[in-house]
Amino acid sequence: MRGDEGTDFSTVLLVIDLVGVFVFSLSGALVAVRKQLDIFGLLVLAFTTGLGGGMIRDVLIGDVPPAALQDWRFLVAAALAGLVAFVYHPALGRMEKFVGVFDAIGLALFTVAGAIKAIDYGVPDAAAALLGMVTGIGGGMLRDVLAGRVPVVLQPGELYAIPSLGGAAVAVGGIELGLSTLVVSIIGGLVCGVWRLLAMWRHWQAPMPQGPASV
Amino acid sequence: MRGDEGTDFSTVLLVIDLVGVFVFSLSGALVAVRKQLDIFGLLVLAFTTGLGGGMIRDVLIGDVPPAALQDWRFLVAAALAGLVAFVYHPALGRMEKFVGVFDAIGLALFTVAGAIKAIDYGVPDAAAALLGMVTGIGGGMLRDVLAGRVPVVLQPGELYAIPSLGGAAVAVGGIELGLSTLVVSIIGGLVCGVWRLLAMWRHWQAPMPQGPASV
Amino acid sequence: MRGDEGTDFSTVLLVIDLVGVFVFSLSGALVAVRKQLDIFGLLVLAFTTGLGGGMIRDVLIGDVPPAALQDWRFLVAAALAGLVAFVYHPALGRMEKFVGVFDAIGLALFTVAGAIKAIDYGVPDAAAALLGMVTGIGGGMLRDVLAGRVPVVLQPGELYAIPSLGGAAVAVGGIELGLSTLVVSIIGGLVCGVWRLLAMWRHWQAPMPQGPASV
Repeated sequence: MRGDEGTDFSTVLLVIDLVGVFVFSLSGALVAVRKQLDIFGLLVLAFTTGLGGGMIRDVLIGDVPPAALQDWRFLVAAALAGLVAFVYHPALGRMEKFVGVFDAIGLALFTVAGAIKAIDYGVPDAAAALLGMVTGIGGGMLRDVLAGRVPVVLQPGELYAIPSLGGAAVAVGGIELGLSTLVVSIIGGLVCGVWRLLAMWRHWQAPMPQGPASV
Repeated sequence: MRGDEGTDFSTVLLVIDLVGVFVFSLSGALVAVRKQLDIFGLLVLAFTTGLGGGMIRDVLIGDVPPAALQDWRFLVAAALAGLVAFVYHPALGRMEKFVGVFDAIGLALFTVAGAIKAIDYGVPDAAAALLGMVTGIGGGMLRDVLAGRVPVVLQPGELYAIPSLGGAAVAVGGIELGLSTLVVSIIGGLVCGVWRLLAMWRHWQAPMPQGPASV
Repeated sequence: MRGDEGTDFSTVLLVIDLVGVFVFSLSGALVAVRKQLDIFGLLVLAFTTGLGGGMIRDVLIGDVPPAALQDWRFLVAAALAGLVAFVYHPALGRMEKFVGVFDAIGLALFTVAGAIKAIDYGVPDAAAALLGMVTGIGGGMLRDVLAGRVPVVLQPGELYAIPSLGGAAVAVGGIELGLSTLVVSIIGGLVCGVWRLLAMWRHWQAPMPQGPASV
């Protein structure tokens, strides 16, 4: 594992990571409220959304038990987000844009952390970029499958996964160029986060297939 | 692996485990009948419900190939349950409460066995309790996702996952206190099973989020 | 790993494998077009359909990172199929039977390759046959779960999974009899592929549960 930038950077990464888990878990819990699930269903959606993407990545690269099960702080962050949403969901619903900004930050961090970890575990470049994206969007996809809907990230709407894949590709490219993990994280994260925020602001969408759908 | 209580206890555990697989597989097959799937769909739902929770746990703790694929008796128990449900589903449907009691026993055993195995594989306590619950409820969640519905365990209804998590927590706590696997299994299993049966009998439910759902 | 038949057979297997990924990915992309997903959703369904079955198998037998992430040619085959479907989906929709024939070939190859790999990793016979089937049908099941529908393979219709399980069982049996991988692959693949094609042509279906479904 890369860790040569020292303790300060590790602490920063951990804090951002916990914030990412918290924000993603909030989004899972809010979906549970809308689906009228009880507090247990809400907590399950909070956990799967906040921790699912990293767990899928860890299972695929062979780092088991996954990091999310090794460090109690991740479980606490997800549970706390669930309880906050259980009590304050009406207020959170009114802060949608605010939550969206934090979600973009979480997406950027998860994406970059996922891509770097995949490289560390010997995954080839193209697959590592994909695993960065899976880390970023996997939790939300699990959330939607459990909530009984087609994953939002697959449906037409403002770009979400493409900024993630873009940021992951930049991070992987930076590592290939020999840049430090710190620099790679910042550049890759900015590409992903800013792209996502611009897509939200300017309503950028991905192209749709043209012509009639075959039945 | 803990095995110091000797062959008799192992045999008891195996028999209960096979009964648990059988009962869970029955519930999967009955869902398939209701969804009008053919015999193959029915068998797939029987297998995933009976063996899915343990397989998710084994993948997450790194015990692969999962135990369910290593011992043909588990495959036979699941297949047998599927065939029984294929032929006798009208009668089984009338025995719903009877099936519910066995399901509670299966839940208790899967939960405790899952939590103990996770501890054996070095998973920290809180995560081990969660994995116990995942072992207990994971198969049913897979069943519901494949059957195209929001997992029953996430929806409002009589407590199911919370007794599982409670029993798993008691089992993990007992191991921390140095109790033997046998004692821990019995106490944790009783907590889970009795709690679940009381919830069925007294219609205990988990709290729901209050106030209007944000859209 | 078995590889003693030399380079030529390996090359043949690789080419057929890539064709299988391509055809399966096409089917995933066509579902995405019907579900009106954008190009990203289409590519995700292409990847999960083409590569998902093998990835589930690899995670279950402990070969991580999965082969599909280790060799860029699989990623390229899946991406290419997605782009072809994005542009030419109306024409592909009219070639449904043609696609169905290639799908049967892909099913046969995935099934046999999955069963042989499971045996190589020490999985017992019955479970290895099941894993062969999982390799063959798992990608399509993931595709359908992500697309929000009950997996087609579980629903009443022309036999699909049963030829797969049959071909896998024949392959496993052949290995037990000491036949070479090449011979086993051909016989098992023919059983699966021909059975599937006959089922399409003659509309063979699996039996349904009889009598009223219990509620």
